[in-house]
Amino acid sequence: MEEKKQITKGKYAANISSIMEANLRIKPHVLRTPVLTSTSLNAMSGRQLHFKCECLQKCGAFKFRGACNAVFSLHDEEAAKGVITHSSGNHAAALSLAAKLRGIPAFIVVPKTAPTCKVDNVMRYGGHVIFSEDTIKSREETAARVQQETGGILIPSSNDGRIMSGQGTISLEFLEQVPQLDTLVVPISGGGMISGVALAAKSINPAIRILAAEPKGADDAAQSKAAGRIIRLPETNTIADGLKAFLGDCTWPVVRDLVDDVIIVEDSEILKAMKLCFQILKVVVEPSGAIGLAAVLSDSFQKNPAWKDCNNIGIVVSGGNVDLGVLWDSLNKAI
Amino acid sequence: MEEKKQITKGKYAANISSIMEANLRIKPHVLRTPVLTSTSLNAMSGRQLHFKCECLQKCGAFKFRGACNAVFSLHDEEAAKGVITHSSGNHAAALSLAAKLRGIPAFIVVPKTAPTCKVDNVMRYGGHVIFSEDTIKSREETAARVQQETGGILIPSSNDGRIMSGQGTISLEFLEQVPQLDTLVVPISGGGMISGVALAAKSINPAIRILAAEPKGADDAAQSKAAGRIIRLPETNTIADGLKAFLGDCTWPVVRDLVDDVIIVEDSEILKAMKLCFQILKVVVEPSGAIGLAAVLSDSFQKNPAWKDCNNIGIVVSGGNVDLGVLWDSLNKAI
Repeated sequence: MEEKKQITKGKYAANISSIMEANLRIKPHVLRTPVLTSTSLNAMSGRQLHFKCECLQKCGAFKFRGACNAVFSLHDEEAAKGVITHSSGNHAAALSLAAKLRGIPAFIVVPKTAPTCKVDNVMRYGGHVIFSEDTIKSREETAARVQQETGGILIPSSNDGRIMSGQGTISLEFLEQVPQLDTLVVPISGGGMISGVALAAKSINPAIRILAAEPKGADDAAQSKAAGRIIRLPETNTIADGLKAFLGDCTWPVVRDLVDDVIIVEDSEILKAMKLCFQILKVVVEPSGAIGLAAVLSDSFQKNPAWKDCNNIGIVVSGGNVDLGVLWDSLNKAI
Repeated sequence: MEEKKQITKGKYAANISSIMEANLRIKPHVLRTPVLTSTSLNAMSGRQLHFKCECLQKCGAFKFRGACNAVFSLHDEEAAKGVITHSSGNHAAALSLAAKLRGIPAFIVVPKTAPTCKVDNVMRYGGHVIFSEDTIKSREETAARVQQETGGILIPSSNDGRIMSGQGTISLEFLEQVPQLDTLVVPISGGGMISGVALAAKSINPAIRILAAEPKGADDAAQSKAAGRIIRLPETNTIADGLKAFLGDCTWPVVRDLVDDVIIVEDSEILKAMKLCFQILKVVVEPSGAIGLAAVLSDSFQKNPAWKDCNNIGIVVSGGNVDLGVLWDSLNKAI
């Protein structure tokens, strides 16, 4: 109860109220994603697994929740000038569609080297693409220039209360769909999703466990938790291209306080989990989307006595935007 | 109303009552499959499309509904001796799982030439595999022998009132999930699904249109409708391996009376639709599962003035059991 009070007191960039407001705001636009189960995967893991399929969300990823919340929470005069972000991934496409639904422009700064399919996605949803060099510096500078030229509002992909609140709506749905969940396993990258999910879930059920799933080649969150401060890695190396971002000042305090542990998995485990999602759940997942299942099947989870009482596990399958070629390679590499 | 009366009068092997009974019977076991929508696919088709994702059903296909209904409607003494079928596909796996859930044996006659993955599926669910030669005659003879030896009950894959009633539960869910549906597009093979779906849907809404989707290389249903009697083809040739069966004496009368038209599609259209399901809906579908979308996007549908008022179209995505290699080849062949 002490913790619950803290959560609602405004200690963090989002809280249960902002998440419930987000829920009302985005409900007309987002899909209440289905929860899938599989007796085969239950048998493999020795637990009851419940898969919240955000890969079936509009734009193919949970990112649409946060983007929608940010776009629809702007005042009319703010909104009119449009929204801006620098991202080539799911957030960019999600922001483009959310802006399109509101009838405002979206300016998306994309590194020249971004895969064509991602640029195509942004354009399909009506986003205006502005190319930058492939460095954080160039992306930020280009975004700043666009902001100056258009007067638009910058919407970060993770480190933002509106984004965190939007992603937190996953918990509201999930705990309504499967009230007996005792554990949530959530991919971690910039921390926008897991912080929103943790804030909402622990407000509803303070005893619920929140476990982050992180690839070994980008384990900054695990390192940050160990160090007690945000660690940014000089480089990252993982097949889960959606999980390479670092925590920020809005997301870190929640991750620090409310995430019970970080489970680190190898890329080979992610590939194996992608294959299982494809073969058994029949959903298309990107590597980041499969990491929750990978975590639950991993030795680090299975052999850790701390998690032996995790019986009803909710796994957020974060997204399904994967190139056919990547999927094919991944599935063939998986043992 | 005249028609509605006929449907409930027992003219057919199933009716709205047997379908509602099936619904109660199988509810604890089957998944209420989600309905997905996509603004992109709506734009492509010029209609509101609603996809009932039976590929996400237990066993990866709608077949589990009928199998479950058949198995759980047996009396204890009948059931004890087990169930038998000759099929290497989704029905075999579905019957094995249904039997396993009831705690009775399932004997599955499989042609020696069946793909390993299909045999594996049956065994994964605990079915006893008995091999036959790859002819209808050998399959039927082997099944008859197994029946004599075990005293088990033969459960056909389509031509059976219990099966039709189980598949009909799709309509009950679908029309509850999307009450405004004015058209249903359903793959046709042995007719077990479409007959159940048509009986239930037309009982609820006599004005709803029922369109069958059939591959050109196995267009026996279209030929049967044209001839006014069951036509069996000397051979079939289509990538949609789940759609090669012929109508039977239970399913044909319903198809004759209640299916408004058969839309014939080319394999190339099926491949294209598979790719769209993968890329946009993010679900894994087998060729048969994609044929409904293929039909709605086809010229035969789009240019037919009879269907210009079909605005809210429900498409049954029948199954997702596809070998990785087949999917990969298909997606690469699709233009």
